[in-house]
Amino acid sequence: MRSGETHSRLKPYHDPDVDTVVNGIMNGDRHMLSRAITLIESLKPEHERKAHEILDRCITKKTSSLRIGITGAPGAGKSTFIEALGELIINQGLTLAVLAIDPSSRQSKGSILGDKARMEKLAARKEAFIRPTASSGYLGGTSPKTHEAIVLCEAAGYDVILVETVGVGQSEVLVDTMVDFILLLMLPGSGDELQGIKRGIMEIADAVAITKTDGDQSGIAAISRAEFEAALRMLPVKHPVWKREVFLTSALTGKGIKDVWENISEFFTAMRKENILETRRRKQLNSLLYTVLEEMLKKEFFSHPDVIASKESIERQVLSTEISPFSGAKKLIEAFIPRR
Amino acid sequence: MRSGETHSRLKPYHDPDVDTVVNGIMNGDRHMLSRAITLIESLKPEHERKAHEILDRCITKKTSSLRIGITGAPGAGKSTFIEALGELIINQGLTLAVLAIDPSSRQSKGSILGDKARMEKLAARKEAFIRPTASSGYLGGTSPKTHEAIVLCEAAGYDVILVETVGVGQSEVLVDTMVDFILLLMLPGSGDELQGIKRGIMEIADAVAITKTDGDQSGIAAISRAEFEAALRMLPVKHPVWKREVFLTSALTGKGIKDVWENISEFFTAMRKENILETRRRKQLNSLLYTVLEEMLKKEFFSHPDVIASKESIERQVLSTEISPFSGAKKLIEAFIPRR
Repeated sequence: MRSGETHSRLKPYHDPDVDTVVNGIMNGDRHMLSRAITLIESLKPEHERKAHEILDRCITKKTSSLRIGITGAPGAGKSTFIEALGELIINQGLTLAVLAIDPSSRQSKGSILGDKARMEKLAARKEAFIRPTASSGYLGGTSPKTHEAIVLCEAAGYDVILVETVGVGQSEVLVDTMVDFILLLMLPGSGDELQGIKRGIMEIADAVAITKTDGDQSGIAAISRAEFEAALRMLPVKHPVWKREVFLTSALTGKGIKDVWENISEFFTAMRKENILETRRRKQLNSLLYTVLEEMLKKEFFSHPDVIASKESIERQVLSTEISPFSGAKKLIEAFIPRR
Repeated sequence: MRSGETHSRLKPYHDPDVDTVVNGIMNGDRHMLSRAITLIESLKPEHERKAHEILDRCITKKTSSLRIGITGAPGAGKSTFIEALGELIINQGLTLAVLAIDPSSRQSKGSILGDKARMEKLAARKEAFIRPTASSGYLGGTSPKTHEAIVLCEAAGYDVILVETVGVGQSEVLVDTMVDFILLLMLPGSGDELQGIKRGIMEIADAVAITKTDGDQSGIAAISRAEFEAALRMLPVKHPVWKREVFLTSALTGKGIKDVWENISEFFTAMRKENILETRRRKQLNSLLYTVLEEMLKKEFFSHPDVIASKESIERQVLSTEISPFSGAKKLIEAFIPRR
């Protein structure tokens, strides 16, 4: 039984202290890792405080993990692809953490299948840690908390961190602020409609894998590949040292999975040679600081009793053009900071 | 001499009260209109306070203006196009306000020519009011203050408000929150590279005008039109009742300018019939309220002495992974709100 995954969905039945959790994580105790992620995701102030203490300790651990984002529209075959890629990664002797989309969350547009049915084979491997992420109101299953979960998985020593997201909106931009490499999964078919994928996701992809190119799909797949290659050429270059490629893959037959992994490995070699990875991660930390800061500030603001008390009437006055949006905003700020 | 434009760049030499300014604006005194816009753009708290009083009075005036955004890359011929379209608008018996990009602002990427040389003919018409907008740090020359300038121009009774922006970044999204119709200007040439225009701007355009399609450009222009038409078909529909068209134009020969104006007129007829305009404007007011609110809140935050005092060291601790971004953010919030 996969105790880490099962217990993580429940409240801790007793309350280990920060030292115990941190030591557990550092020693590869997946149960403690799961608990720490649960604390991160909790909205309770006492959990939040504890989570910060754990994060402060875990973030100091130096690691050389590979952070990989896997994104694609619902139905693109993300879980089966991750299973196939994950097995290959483990067979290289590496350990793997997967921050997966929580299928029970309607907003994340995850599969309707339960956790157990998703990534079943991968979940049975001791080298893999699979954790559904709580999207907590974020589209596509990514939130600043995902970045924190990555930090914990790294402290636990995982070599490769796969972050699964749905490319439906702002999530692609967010995931780009926390991973090194982004792989976009697309179904074979017309590139014309881009299958509901926002164009933004194409711009931040470092490679595209066309999925399910087995059986009678192979003809369409070749056309799709040409179309995506053309589309990538039209987009601005993401890294000057990196040429984005399109792969034909099948999780069923294993086709192309090795090529994708080789491509990812080449990417990390190229990035490390140019020292781009280090610079990028520092920028990501800085961007996370300000993302979290803005969220906290807004949360403080909109939970302030005087703001809550006046918000509705001010909004009404603005919408009926009784007062200007500027004056409305000023009134709300004054409710929050009366000293002005 | 066009007193409105000239004095607007200078500080007011005496200080008319709110009543005088508001009455002036309502009576079509362009000098007072210019002064009010200067107050809006001012960073001085006493000007800001006065500007809000003026805006609160002006926003209550009911108008049925047409708000049109004109956007395009630098060099797409925005000013000459606006001159040609503006003349046509005035000749229909309408009055016109142009919120133009301030060419003196490096960030707005405006023309290197001075104000006087831009829209010279239009500036000589008493039916037109031309005002360079201060981009105040915003890319593309659009800021929430532009929305406020629109409100003032409407209170002054202008029938059509043209807002010129450069489609280089976030400005397109901002302009979409303040105008009814967006016209994208593109040079003839390969649609492949999209001429440095971010794809986002294509998504919010209600029509595309290919400029400078005179002389030996006409062959390329026809190909460009086909390419842009194809590109528009690939994008999500902006308004279900509106089909986006691509026009071949020349400000030099006047070609296509009338077609563009007819298209814009048809747009407003269609939108009014469906009551879409009213709904959209309410949404825009609401979005402006929260944009301004967030800006004010961040301004309060980052100008707080205790935040300023600790920001640099906290940022350094986060970047060196001494503390997590989450703890860093929390420390900064606590500097701002010590009562927690």
